[in-house]
Amino acid sequence: MPEPSLAVLHNLATQLRIDSVRSTSAAGSGHPTTCLSAADIVAALFFAEMRFDPHDPHHPEADRFVLSKGHGAPILYAAWAAAGAFPREDLMQLRTLGSDLEGHPTPRLPFVDVATGSLGQGLAAGIGTALNARRIDSDYRTYVLMGDGESAEGSVWEAAESAVFHRLDNLCGIVDVNGFGQSRATQYGRDADAHAARWNAFGWHAIVIDGHDMSQVLAALAEARRTKDRPTMIAARTLKGKGCSIFEGKDHWHGKALKKGAEEDQALAELEAQYVKTSDPAPVIPKPARRRDEGPFPDFVKALPAPAYKLNDSVATREAYGTALAALGGIDARVVALDADVKNSTFSERFEKLHPERFYQMFIAEQVMIGASMGLAARGAISFPSSFACFLERASDFVRMAGISNVNIKLAGSHAGVSIGEDGPSQMALEDLAIFRAVPNCTVLYPSDAMSAERLVALAAATPGPAYIRISRPKTPVIYSVNETFVAGGSKTLRQTDRDAVTVVAAGITLFEALKAHDLLAPDGIAIRVIDAYSIQPIDRDALVAAGRATGGRMVTVEDHYSHGGLGDAVSDAVWDQGFRVQRLAVRKIPRSGPPEVLLDHFGISASAIVNAVKSQVAGS
Amino acid sequence: MPEPSLAVLHNLATQLRIDSVRSTSAAGSGHPTTCLSAADIVAALFFAEMRFDPHDPHHPEADRFVLSKGHGAPILYAAWAAAGAFPREDLMQLRTLGSDLEGHPTPRLPFVDVATGSLGQGLAAGIGTALNARRIDSDYRTYVLMGDGESAEGSVWEAAESAVFHRLDNLCGIVDVNGFGQSRATQYGRDADAHAARWNAFGWHAIVIDGHDMSQVLAALAEARRTKDRPTMIAARTLKGKGCSIFEGKDHWHGKALKKGAEEDQALAELEAQYVKTSDPAPVIPKPARRRDEGPFPDFVKALPAPAYKLNDSVATREAYGTALAALGGIDARVVALDADVKNSTFSERFEKLHPERFYQMFIAEQVMIGASMGLAARGAISFPSSFACFLERASDFVRMAGISNVNIKLAGSHAGVSIGEDGPSQMALEDLAIFRAVPNCTVLYPSDAMSAERLVALAAATPGPAYIRISRPKTPVIYSVNETFVAGGSKTLRQTDRDAVTVVAAGITLFEALKAHDLLAPDGIAIRVIDAYSIQPIDRDALVAAGRATGGRMVTVEDHYSHGGLGDAVSDAVWDQGFRVQRLAVRKIPRSGPPEVLLDHFGISASAIVNAVKSQVAGS
Repeated sequence: MPEPSLAVLHNLATQLRIDSVRSTSAAGSGHPTTCLSAADIVAALFFAEMRFDPHDPHHPEADRFVLSKGHGAPILYAAWAAAGAFPREDLMQLRTLGSDLEGHPTPRLPFVDVATGSLGQGLAAGIGTALNARRIDSDYRTYVLMGDGESAEGSVWEAAESAVFHRLDNLCGIVDVNGFGQSRATQYGRDADAHAARWNAFGWHAIVIDGHDMSQVLAALAEARRTKDRPTMIAARTLKGKGCSIFEGKDHWHGKALKKGAEEDQALAELEAQYVKTSDPAPVIPKPARRRDEGPFPDFVKALPAPAYKLNDSVATREAYGTALAALGGIDARVVALDADVKNSTFSERFEKLHPERFYQMFIAEQVMIGASMGLAARGAISFPSSFACFLERASDFVRMAGISNVNIKLAGSHAGVSIGEDGPSQMALEDLAIFRAVPNCTVLYPSDAMSAERLVALAAATPGPAYIRISRPKTPVIYSVNETFVAGGSKTLRQTDRDAVTVVAAGITLFEALKAHDLLAPDGIAIRVIDAYSIQPIDRDALVAAGRATGGRMVTVEDHYSHGGLGDAVSDAVWDQGFRVQRLAVRKIPRSGPPEVLLDHFGISASAIVNAVKSQVAGS
Repeated sequence: MPEPSLAVLHNLATQLRIDSVRSTSAAGSGHPTTCLSAADIVAALFFAEMRFDPHDPHHPEADRFVLSKGHGAPILYAAWAAAGAFPREDLMQLRTLGSDLEGHPTPRLPFVDVATGSLGQGLAAGIGTALNARRIDSDYRTYVLMGDGESAEGSVWEAAESAVFHRLDNLCGIVDVNGFGQSRATQYGRDADAHAARWNAFGWHAIVIDGHDMSQVLAALAEARRTKDRPTMIAARTLKGKGCSIFEGKDHWHGKALKKGAEEDQALAELEAQYVKTSDPAPVIPKPARRRDEGPFPDFVKALPAPAYKLNDSVATREAYGTALAALGGIDARVVALDADVKNSTFSERFEKLHPERFYQMFIAEQVMIGASMGLAARGAISFPSSFACFLERASDFVRMAGISNVNIKLAGSHAGVSIGEDGPSQMALEDLAIFRAVPNCTVLYPSDAMSAERLVALAAATPGPAYIRISRPKTPVIYSVNETFVAGGSKTLRQTDRDAVTVVAAGITLFEALKAHDLLAPDGIAIRVIDAYSIQPIDRDALVAAGRATGGRMVTVEDHYSHGGLGDAVSDAVWDQGFRVQRLAVRKIPRSGPPEVLLDHFGISASAIVNAVKSQVAGS
């Protein structure tokens, strides 16, 4: 196919500018200026560089475009409309409740892989889509358009380092150096060379261009395609608001739509005048050469080999996680694992040993680990990133965006709670359940023993969307037989009589404290019902309500987590309409170093704390 | 004072190595190898470079040392013991519950400014302590010892960029390039030049040395002291485990203490043999020249000028935040503000206008904004970092560590909830309350109108420790008079009769929905009690219990937040022992773009949703 002429591309860029102005003025909000600085780059990418099918954006081998500067959404939408994905007039529905053309892009739109708008995340996602190309042995390329302002985000530099480690020459970033952030000039202004120098120092092939010179844009993209063994970053010097004299190159216009009427009219008139006459042919977007689909997923729950544990074996759930993860990798080639240099603590090294080509080392950089996981998942993989649970919190904002993106990312956080012991509070996750439960579509699982851990890892793989598996450092006895089944929204009632005084709901490490409390209370003639709430979200409302009713509305929850947003709150919310008393035993102050058992007791979540709470509830009723 | 001789420093480094091995072996866990790689650097810093008083570590003008690689805690403790801060034999209490010598350093120890152990945070804190030197016009210097593994954290590069912007020539970083992370070799191995090249590209003065050559260490520190207008990074090539043949330069020894007995004995024998004979004088640590104290804080609540709002004025709480912040800055010179390029959205620009020398622009880099805030606060400032609430979540792990550090950092998060409207889910904070409530010592405040917003900003300043202020984008009417007082743990009952059927607890934007619901229900003869829970943590248990009892145990909470970990859970936990029914109206699925009022209704937190819930509860009782 002949390359489109510069005149044709220029006119397309002008059309994208016009549509960006019109749609934001119609919406009465949005970011026209950031669209206009990027218009020439976007026109070049969509109409002279990328291979894709506008009517099949999910094509598994189409080139990927990630708009990391998500506030530039209007030009993304304009480009897909110009490519023929949907009618151009739909652009006028921007930012209305009935339209998927939201203020920032989300995968509600078929041509969006991951939601953007929280700045600095796109390049990490692009690493994921680029790694995915290698996974499926495809030559598709990934392009990530970034803002210069967002380059201050550390996540960008995590991605910078990681892309070099993985030698991703199928990844091309473009930083739109328009010099302005939201509230002022950026640290580097329009010094594209300063941007390029940093990318070079990180090992990228960096190219500086005038981002409004179409031939320079095309040449840089071609140079990126020719560059082997390392990724390319194009630092494009641009003018924010390029093409409209009202705001071209001016500060204090960030995030401001032009007012309908004279202001918009003037801008549109100026832009219309920028069309050039040409009889050159319209561009033909090349389609990907072939389409190989990976088919439906297997039933991971059924396919998982039966775990080999015997009752009372002593195995940490983190170890069982590694075992199950490695097994899942053997079931389907789409299962991938990512590590942040703790594979020997999370046991994800067992996956690496069997499937090294699908194990991605991201070093101590949790944001790019999760961002890349999102990109991989958006392109068909099932991603298992894991680290210490507290360090996953480093990437909370990526987790938030993973929820909005609704991707198949299955996080595992180890070393949860004070039960890690001597390493102290900086290594203890005590808010991870709150963070992951606050992702409405995230399944949250918390195994207590190795048997349930393996089953729940398979369940996470089998459950669409994000999932979080909380795993523990200490070894715990195996309490479930190989015949037990575990489902999302399920629970297990481990101790039960028809005279139970209190329902005790536990999960993970505290389940064993609850079982101990059960035995400690027996001599006093107090029976308790013990429930393993291994599925924290969704939670087994029916079982909890039934148990609460059977025990006079007396419930005690116990968790190795702060009292906020965890198991206790989940139980309480589930049974809110019952008038039960749900007492939450949880960590309520900043912990410290010490032996695990001592800390459980010191912070009020041990068997003796449960015994006291139960006795107090019984006495009070 | 004469400089200590190389022989003396070498022997001190040997002593630090010995103490690191002994204390970790006694504890049975810990990180001797990372201590040994850094021993020569630490000896040089403590005994030939820094000015401090071991008996007065809080001295406001003492040089600061931040151990960013917090797992090297044993050598930090050994150095302070060697300096005379406490008896050397106390080191053997490492990691026991009764000792403050925890697995990773926390400010329970007087010589620790901020807790470390979550890697990649120390340099950001160091920026804070370096900015503080400028604030108090002191020449004290800040030294940050980092690991090479943690250099993969993006937060490090946020700090790299920020330190250059702020021209912090009083800041010196040292990266201990021992080549090994936890689970494997780092991306760059022992290539200290690769590290230095990146720091150079970011604008630092970078120096490469052999980190075990004491004269090179001293020369580099002196060169850093002479370097003006920019910070210095020393990339020190070292051997992990230096000095003990068991693990020197070997992989797979991360985080492993030597076993008591033969293993430890061999190591100690090798180290003891490394002492050199010398009669050179022991080092004399120079004390800071002067000590100027800043005195106690004023009563910020009383000192705040009376806000000038009239009832029914329409003002966004974010605007009132900016006004109050600027006023606080006039009350005390220790009040500082930090921005992540949204000062025109959070109105922190009002502070900048009046107090530009104490307003720190951190650009779009929330981690370094909060880390620097921690460093400033640790040295006497009261730090107000602010951004969109959802972007503060980018720094959740810094918030976690701020809690462990218990510093005076007062975060403000704007644009909370779906009520921001058209910008869509990526800009909506719906989990911020969960994240901040999960910091046990964090005061969480949520004003509804401008009057309470100003009062609560002053209250945050006046309340020791971390605080979070949730502010909203839309304008809301002023409902409080200038005479109202607001306290941590307080609430306001805005509607009340002696026949109230249901208690409705709201805060922020939803308070106005509750008031509307009150009026909508009146024609049906249904009275509701409306409570403004402006203090989410601590929460006003007494008032909630009293209201719940007065309304037959029927309660409805309504919040512009996900249903997890927010207002509803806070209320429910506070009244758990009452057997109330606490129904949580909250956002329960991923939101989307749309007009604010439409979204409140669409996601079930509008007046009509409250009306329905109240009617349903009344009908059900």
